[in-house]
Amino acid sequence: MERIVYVNGAYVPESEAKVSVFDRGFLFADAVYEVTSVLDGRLIDNAGHIARLERSCRELEIKMPVTAEELTSIQLALIEKNKLVEGGVYLQLTRGNEGDRDFSYGDAIEPTLVLFTQAKKLIDSPKVQSGIKVISFDDIRWRRRDIKTTSLLPACLAKHAAHAAGADDVWLLENGYVTEGGSSNAYIITQEGTLVTRPLSNDILHGITRAALMKLAQETGLKIEERLFTLEEAMQAKEAFISSATTFVWPVVAIDDQPIGNGQPGPMALKLRDIYIQTAKACA
Amino acid sequence: MERIVYVNGAYVPESEAKVSVFDRGFLFADAVYEVTSVLDGRLIDNAGHIARLERSCRELEIKMPVTAEELTSIQLALIEKNKLVEGGVYLQLTRGNEGDRDFSYGDAIEPTLVLFTQAKKLIDSPKVQSGIKVISFDDIRWRRRDIKTTSLLPACLAKHAAHAAGADDVWLLENGYVTEGGSSNAYIITQEGTLVTRPLSNDILHGITRAALMKLAQETGLKIEERLFTLEEAMQAKEAFISSATTFVWPVVAIDDQPIGNGQPGPMALKLRDIYIQTAKACA
Repeated sequence: MERIVYVNGAYVPESEAKVSVFDRGFLFADAVYEVTSVLDGRLIDNAGHIARLERSCRELEIKMPVTAEELTSIQLALIEKNKLVEGGVYLQLTRGNEGDRDFSYGDAIEPTLVLFTQAKKLIDSPKVQSGIKVISFDDIRWRRRDIKTTSLLPACLAKHAAHAAGADDVWLLENGYVTEGGSSNAYIITQEGTLVTRPLSNDILHGITRAALMKLAQETGLKIEERLFTLEEAMQAKEAFISSATTFVWPVVAIDDQPIGNGQPGPMALKLRDIYIQTAKACA
Repeated sequence: MERIVYVNGAYVPESEAKVSVFDRGFLFADAVYEVTSVLDGRLIDNAGHIARLERSCRELEIKMPVTAEELTSIQLALIEKNKLVEGGVYLQLTRGNEGDRDFSYGDAIEPTLVLFTQAKKLIDSPKVQSGIKVISFDDIRWRRRDIKTTSLLPACLAKHAAHAAGADDVWLLENGYVTEGGSSNAYIITQEGTLVTRPLSNDILHGITRAALMKLAQETGLKIEERLFTLEEAMQAKEAFISSATTFVWPVVAIDDQPIGNGQPGPMALKLRDIYIQTAKACA
């Protein structure tokens, strides 16, 4: 059975899910997106994702064509139509299509809204048991990484390079400091047991899972430092991990082939993952 | 009559010119493009555009699905079918569509090729007589501006800001130096009559029109310096101008509301424009 995809008000089989070649999302990457994970058929942390989508739209002056409530209805309808139990709902909003190609744009333009589901094992991911290996990679992205746009070519190239090097992902480096993962936030646990992660700024994505995780980490009494950290400090850390909407928390067991801690998934990373999943399920 | 658009081997009316929402060009801006201008129904400097497309593809490991000759045949067929006399042929090549969303990609993926025409007055553009006004704008783009990708949101935002400020375009600034225009290369003529433009690097697009223009400028005996220049130096210049495939050469008459020279289109800019157009037409 073909997946059912939402395109501008219509629910269509995926083979018919198309947009105009004149859509600004296709021509200019003039578009924003969100991915909300799904567990037991329920949306995880969705209010945060929609709030971030609204922020992205404000920053770029892209109109929201539907209300937050309508958006959630569409997400739930897709879960239902595709019998999605575990995975994610992808959502992309472009500035729309003015019928021709022009960098500049008018105010009357109608946005394009696309949503689709992706089935995926999130809880029993093999990466939780094995941890992931990352390579360091130059962060060459634009300067507004806080806006979740579809300008994702640098992330694609970085992840492809990681796979070619036998690793799972990248940790991006700017001026010697780690910014984030290929599509995730990056954390270390120092030898003293302090959780360190980069503070929010235009340099990194303001992770929805990050926000939830930081709150939970605080509640567990973990000492937290939001500050820059270098690759060298990460390599000397007790633990390292990433967070994102679809991975929740994945332990990092090696950076540039250097094992982190004893080279096994760290207990604090696994604990935070468990707490996050429990809380997320309870609130879903 | 609807425009005829080329999409993956088919010539279709523009209302039917669509791509899958799973196309990596739509999801990730994993795509490159070129615009070749058309005068008297003929392609201008097209060999240069195709050579640059091939370079962009090599840099990103995107496959060329057709030969340079086949690509030119498609361009000419579109000119013919749309009776295009003056304007441009837009060409976009994406890494393709693997049927689902994943940052990484396999080697077997088939690229997506889209081409369409745009009718536009290039010779008798009003901007030649009036010149254009630009505002300075932070260059926040990624670090591989030499690859002509569709990650064009920063350019869209910059041009929109220029229009909102009553100007025509931007000159982008990095560390105090001008990199380029919103979608063009930037030049000044100093008070001593020297043509100054930024040297080629990953910081700017390697303009096809720039290459042709530099050769012609050299042949006219103009003294040329390829070096960085600041906004302040540009404001003190005798002339300023931009070049691109669809503007050829447009004089810049003001930067941040400061008139350049006497505030009128500079004679050297207009002379270079004339020589370029004559040569381009003769070689087309």
